[in-house]
Amino acid sequence: MQDPAIEEVLQPLRESVKRQDEHVENLKKNGSTKDELVHALMSLKLKKKALKNKVCFWLQVYPRVSRTFQEEELLRELEPFDRFKMEDLLKRRFFYDQSFSIYGGIAGLYDYGPVGCAMKANIIQLWRRHFILEDSMLEVDCSMLTPEAVLRASGHVERFCDYMVKDKKTDECFRADHLIKAHLEKKLQDGKVNENLKKEYEDLDGFTWQEMQAVIEKYGMKSPVTGNDLSEPLAFNLMFPTSIGPTGLVPGYLRPETAQGIFVNFKRLLQFNQGKLPFAAAQIGTGFRNEISPRQGLIRVREFTMAEVEHFVDPANKQHPKFKDVQFYEIPLFSACGQLSGGQVEVYQLKEAVSTGLINNETLGYYMARVHQFLLMVGVDPKKLRFRQHLSNEMAHYATDCWDAECHTSHGWIECVGIADRSCYDLLQHSKATGVKLVAEKHLATPKKVTGTRCVPDKRAIGMQYRGDAASVLKYLEAMSEEECTELADQLDKAGTVEVNCNGKCFNVTKEMCRMEPFSKIVHVEEFVPSVIEPSFGIGRIMYAVCEHSFRTRKDDEQRTYLALPAVVAPYKCSILPLSAHSEFQPFIQRLSTLLTELNVSHKIDDSGGSIGRRYARTDEIAIPFAITIDFDTLSFPHSATLRERDSMMQVRTPLDELPGIINALVCGTLSWEEILGKYPKFVQQESSRRENGA
Amino acid sequence: MQDPAIEEVLQPLRESVKRQDEHVENLKKNGSTKDELVHALMSLKLKKKALKNKVCFWLQVYPRVSRTFQEEELLRELEPFDRFKMEDLLKRRFFYDQSFSIYGGIAGLYDYGPVGCAMKANIIQLWRRHFILEDSMLEVDCSMLTPEAVLRASGHVERFCDYMVKDKKTDECFRADHLIKAHLEKKLQDGKVNENLKKEYEDLDGFTWQEMQAVIEKYGMKSPVTGNDLSEPLAFNLMFPTSIGPTGLVPGYLRPETAQGIFVNFKRLLQFNQGKLPFAAAQIGTGFRNEISPRQGLIRVREFTMAEVEHFVDPANKQHPKFKDVQFYEIPLFSACGQLSGGQVEVYQLKEAVSTGLINNETLGYYMARVHQFLLMVGVDPKKLRFRQHLSNEMAHYATDCWDAECHTSHGWIECVGIADRSCYDLLQHSKATGVKLVAEKHLATPKKVTGTRCVPDKRAIGMQYRGDAASVLKYLEAMSEEECTELADQLDKAGTVEVNCNGKCFNVTKEMCRMEPFSKIVHVEEFVPSVIEPSFGIGRIMYAVCEHSFRTRKDDEQRTYLALPAVVAPYKCSILPLSAHSEFQPFIQRLSTLLTELNVSHKIDDSGGSIGRRYARTDEIAIPFAITIDFDTLSFPHSATLRERDSMMQVRTPLDELPGIINALVCGTLSWEEILGKYPKFVQQESSRRENGA
Repeated sequence: MQDPAIEEVLQPLRESVKRQDEHVENLKKNGSTKDELVHALMSLKLKKKALKNKVCFWLQVYPRVSRTFQEEELLRELEPFDRFKMEDLLKRRFFYDQSFSIYGGIAGLYDYGPVGCAMKANIIQLWRRHFILEDSMLEVDCSMLTPEAVLRASGHVERFCDYMVKDKKTDECFRADHLIKAHLEKKLQDGKVNENLKKEYEDLDGFTWQEMQAVIEKYGMKSPVTGNDLSEPLAFNLMFPTSIGPTGLVPGYLRPETAQGIFVNFKRLLQFNQGKLPFAAAQIGTGFRNEISPRQGLIRVREFTMAEVEHFVDPANKQHPKFKDVQFYEIPLFSACGQLSGGQVEVYQLKEAVSTGLINNETLGYYMARVHQFLLMVGVDPKKLRFRQHLSNEMAHYATDCWDAECHTSHGWIECVGIADRSCYDLLQHSKATGVKLVAEKHLATPKKVTGTRCVPDKRAIGMQYRGDAASVLKYLEAMSEEECTELADQLDKAGTVEVNCNGKCFNVTKEMCRMEPFSKIVHVEEFVPSVIEPSFGIGRIMYAVCEHSFRTRKDDEQRTYLALPAVVAPYKCSILPLSAHSEFQPFIQRLSTLLTELNVSHKIDDSGGSIGRRYARTDEIAIPFAITIDFDTLSFPHSATLRERDSMMQVRTPLDELPGIINALVCGTLSWEEILGKYPKFVQQESSRRENGA
Repeated sequence: MQDPAIEEVLQPLRESVKRQDEHVENLKKNGSTKDELVHALMSLKLKKKALKNKVCFWLQVYPRVSRTFQEEELLRELEPFDRFKMEDLLKRRFFYDQSFSIYGGIAGLYDYGPVGCAMKANIIQLWRRHFILEDSMLEVDCSMLTPEAVLRASGHVERFCDYMVKDKKTDECFRADHLIKAHLEKKLQDGKVNENLKKEYEDLDGFTWQEMQAVIEKYGMKSPVTGNDLSEPLAFNLMFPTSIGPTGLVPGYLRPETAQGIFVNFKRLLQFNQGKLPFAAAQIGTGFRNEISPRQGLIRVREFTMAEVEHFVDPANKQHPKFKDVQFYEIPLFSACGQLSGGQVEVYQLKEAVSTGLINNETLGYYMARVHQFLLMVGVDPKKLRFRQHLSNEMAHYATDCWDAECHTSHGWIECVGIADRSCYDLLQHSKATGVKLVAEKHLATPKKVTGTRCVPDKRAIGMQYRGDAASVLKYLEAMSEEECTELADQLDKAGTVEVNCNGKCFNVTKEMCRMEPFSKIVHVEEFVPSVIEPSFGIGRIMYAVCEHSFRTRKDDEQRTYLALPAVVAPYKCSILPLSAHSEFQPFIQRLSTLLTELNVSHKIDDSGGSIGRRYARTDEIAIPFAITIDFDTLSFPHSATLRERDSMMQVRTPLDELPGIINALVCGTLSWEEILGKYPKFVQQESSRRENGA
């Protein structure tokens, strides 16, 4: 324990244990409530554990673990963060909490209370303004219930799975990759590390179930709960199944993402945009994933609000008309090469990153800048934000390039936004499944001659054979591409009959039903399947990261915690606090409340009996950035009140009628707190009386 | 056909057929597109059918059908409405359309396109402001996935059913009551009416399946599609089932209403409100109902946005602190007595309606006024709005009073908002199911002595018997009310053992496990289960009613239809139209767009090639209330542009830089169009050039 660098890290932890110990003693002496004491004791226990872990960690593990782990620890060192304390605040003030807890609760489901709900609505409102309004996107609102055929085409029915292993005796389920990761991480921490193991741990994303099974067997892994044997890894589809309609004949799922709703509406949206490309559609809505064993609070949930943009663009030209506005924007990138070679996050100018090909194209780059701006605006700490490029084994086979905006939290780096170039995969898949062309057109600078083969169906033969279904068979045959025609012709030559699949039904096509015919024509217009650039936001994860990044403890009082949320995101914009229950204060409170409502400024009146200091602490906890206090001086003419800022706790005295306008301007950002300090006289009395009241 | 009253109704229909006939001829002559011609022909066919129906109707049926039917027809007469034309507009401009239609579509699922989505978001935003912000409600956002136990307690698992009958050969399903209603309505229209039949038709709501079966048999009803025999009515639960987690052991449903999420959070919300009653919680979210055979567009859907308020109040005092603000508000009521005695809608002052007991209490009355205000604000026609009281057979057994805000549409009167006093039913049910007390406290003016019997469980005996479940059994026994204790004691005396149900499991309680003990205490505080007043809004239905009520046809051109939505609800607030593609217009368009975005005013630039008249028609169709036109005069200094109002089509010339502020003020309602007309010079040229361009 002689290393001064280590001591520097341990000292604050020791101090914290000591202070908490004293706090508990004080509570006991002063006869506090049972709840308060239990809280304080649990906090003490956790602090001691943190200290112990840190000591063990520095002694045994630090020099031997992987670089990423080091980096995470260093970040934690910079600003000690007590997750238990924050979660206690979020739960106690009902930002969010487990759903149905009076029924025992369901893992991975959360309800947002009044302040969490307002915070979420504010983030969504900002998103709508920053993305949809500023870039004239087409917002849609599609069904969550989705028939199976749609998700079969998108690949979700087949591939949207995680592997799980079951406890052979209790049937408890675990996610195989998480289980292996936790097991190997423990081994790493125990120092029993070798190169092989490290490799296995890093490649987990691309493992088949057989490979996972091999690792589980090799290390003799058991259920971490009971120690029982585990089953082989089974693929478990993460979609919630249901059936639509009374006959039970239409199997469906709850959508796992909102994107598919946009793709199946592509034709209507293109028409709405008068046939012009590029355009972006957007959707804010709920997605569902039946996680095997969700355990990380808001980070891994079964029902979540997403916001997705699908930007449709000519694959031959992925420039963005507004890229020039962001070309000098600087952005922290953790490239695939950097990850593989043990490199660091580096800050690039976007122009450079795109021109060197690090970021695949302008449109992708444009959105990365917009995402970065948005995340800072809602309160993500720029020091804890990076864009990590997907490694080739993480990326879907059809994707061209993919970057995750990751926020650093006490759970490590978590993906909050994924920005992917999905190429034309989804539109092609839906087109294949339905026989409906999902294409855009572009005018050719010089018309060109096109020759080829097309399929001419025999309407009569098909009509006689398939009656009600004839139309869809005809549509399918007529929509075939050049290659499909050639293939069909080949197969018909060989087998005489070919089975085709349209709208989920199978039909036999025979030689009599169609013939192939060469054609040649001059075209002025060319059809193409657009590429899609998709920024996809997990609103709950962003909220969680913002809460961690803005969680603060008052320097002089470790029990006083608060959230320093940006005003624009804060659940309420100001509180109105009468100094006492004096009835003469009422008309002033009412007048302020009415004026604030007219300006659409949300506010909270706290006329409960506590001391003003205690009430400031209460409104700080729920992140209210400004507080107006009505006191006895308010009653005399000209009427005035004090205005207090949450983070600095500074106060000024302002004329009463100016307050609603001031708050509105502060929230909109057209006025700064510094300007207020310059304009109005400072006020000290109330805040100082706080200490006397012991709040 | 001699009755002049009848002629007065038929004349406009005849005119309309004639005009459409001419329009079709013109299209044929001028070589219009195939789509246009098909639309026009379909419209002609429908107009002819409407005329024919009306003739048949007046000749044969009118004097004999029920009063309600007459009333509906009279309302239709007042303003002829062409539903086909409106639906064509809504579909063509993608307000909303069937989901997954490239896959053949799913009945009862709709996607909102850009304009519908914006309109819906605006209605929700207004709702949030009018209800949540103005009345300081606690907004929450709860899970849609709901475990079965919750919905069993609420009664949905057992009772949330409709009866369906199946075509015995094709298995097609029909809702039994709709089938019977349609069949009997047809009989009514055919004039084959008698008193018995009328009674059967009116009482359908309270029928058991046996009674329905008797009616079906009596009239020999068959499948309306195939004429095949029908099965007996089967109860079909309208909730979508799914299962939560990988083991399949947690059965769940998609919530059929958002209300239950609020009830299960009651304790947290009461705590958030610092224990004080009354308070209101609110939730905006999606509900799901697996309708048997949805056919009426947005009115009957399987997935829908609801907005619900649950106002918790002391059942002994249902006064509302803000009732005095609305006591003189006038509201159209169709009382239960009025309905039974063939009466009419009557307009009451709220004060009178509440004091005479017609409306059960102040809180119910207050919300009815707020709902009325809200519906008018979003564009419901006051002439087509009434509050209908539930008849006793419609009301849930626990409800005290219930009023539906109904809007008249071409589908008849439809329920858009239900305002019910649910008493303390839901809280009691969840309390019984979980053993968790869901109560509020009130301080008694004079403390009182309470004596009674309580159950003292034997922890050891229960612990030994039930181990892990012991806690919930203990909780159950301790939470029993006076009556429950007495009953349990009686049963134990008789049988020695009693089965109790806690958390969905059954346990046997024996005499050894508990004893009853008399007690007496002085109480200063009384616990009570709050009553709940619930206004529940169907956002999609309100949108649909608003669309019907604001659908207009230009007097001089029957092909030009538009939606006269209030500016606050309109999807975009203004359009920006350059008179031509002249490049010098670009900087002015960009400048306006930037300034409007800064003010958060949504707008749409239409720089497509069409004539200005055609583009006005296009922006009218999607309800844009104001249009700014940039023309050659804009280029000269001082820069100016024309501003056009949608409904009057009047235009003024205004300075360019004033426009964003003007639009914002017009949308917020702080400035009226009349004031604009008084302040700026009128402008006529462009609108008149419309006709020359033949748009």
